[in-house]
Amino acid sequence: MTTSKGTLLVWTGPSGVGKGTVLQWVMERVPHLYFSISATTRAPRPGEVDGQHYHFLTREQFDRYVEQDAFLEHASYVDNSYGTLEGPVQQALDEGRDVVLEIEVQGAQMVKRRRPDAVLVFVAPPSFAELERRLRGRGTESDEKIGRRLETARQELRQAAGFDYIVINDRVEQAGEELMAILLAERCRSEKRKMMLEVEENAQS
Amino acid sequence: MTTSKGTLLVWTGPSGVGKGTVLQWVMERVPHLYFSISATTRAPRPGEVDGQHYHFLTREQFDRYVEQDAFLEHASYVDNSYGTLEGPVQQALDEGRDVVLEIEVQGAQMVKRRRPDAVLVFVAPPSFAELERRLRGRGTESDEKIGRRLETARQELRQAAGFDYIVINDRVEQAGEELMAILLAERCRSEKRKMMLEVEENAQS
Repeated sequence: MTTSKGTLLVWTGPSGVGKGTVLQWVMERVPHLYFSISATTRAPRPGEVDGQHYHFLTREQFDRYVEQDAFLEHASYVDNSYGTLEGPVQQALDEGRDVVLEIEVQGAQMVKRRRPDAVLVFVAPPSFAELERRLRGRGTESDEKIGRRLETARQELRQAAGFDYIVINDRVEQAGEELMAILLAERCRSEKRKMMLEVEENAQS
Repeated sequence: MTTSKGTLLVWTGPSGVGKGTVLQWVMERVPHLYFSISATTRAPRPGEVDGQHYHFLTREQFDRYVEQDAFLEHASYVDNSYGTLEGPVQQALDEGRDVVLEIEVQGAQMVKRRRPDAVLVFVAPPSFAELERRLRGRGTESDEKIGRRLETARQELRQAAGFDYIVINDRVEQAGEELMAILLAERCRSEKRKMMLEVEENAQS
């Protein structure tokens, strides 16, 4: 008995490209989508709720999960660690829900190595100039920090061709419709549509 | 210079499954879709228009195209031959249009061997019993003929897993939306979205 399982979709792309905005647009329209929540060792900021914005873990808890190989992907920066726990993701997939992970480009590639069934979607800006405009438009970062983000973005864009899909975020609605189409098309992939067996079983009875 | 090219989509499945009905629903909603018209040696039936329902060819014309290897797929039956000319299909693809071929399951596999870039979609009935009901509902064929169609369908369904996608035609609207999602998702495939290069070119200038 193979039940129809959900799609593990990794939603990634350069900082500033608008991944979160598009995802929110889609979440409002696809009720059963499961949005994976990252785990982190950093302290909650004012207003952040445990289990909603992040799973806030102690350093000890995080390290124990690493030892148990419980992360789909994880990364450590100077002060803090971030990761995606595989357990809740797998549970949602087993329930037949589609799961979206919004993570960094590096993490996306870690997921693909661990889970070749994952579908990787790269969100690209319509142009490099537009990405720069969006980053500057935030008005919260120094020129130096923006410069570093742009350099990282340039490297990430070179890797985009290695992903399964590329969604260009020109207009949010269009990018959102493309993500929805990818989710629906993936459900139609013949590997996922095992119901042929059932059809034939019905035919025998 | 790689321009964005269209998708060659093969729409196939057992007789009676409703391929044409779903396709018509989609054609009304996707204006730039190119629906490939088959060539045939059979005589036009009353009301059939050359270049609209079929390209009507003489036996000599058809055989010349076969010699010139001009068919994407072709098949000969007792009296008549049918085929899909590659020329007009390629022209539409070069213009960036998506092309749909509605053909038999055998022909679909011929297309895939010749054009590995083709996307094969198998249209399946929600159940075998439902397929039988639809075939009988037509009320135009003998029990023997329906029996043969069902036996062929059973063989074809076994091959469905080898296709890229399976669309289950339970309700026309749902099947149509799945076909539209496949077309849009295929446009987002990273191999097709070569614009990364352009993005980087813009960044250099």
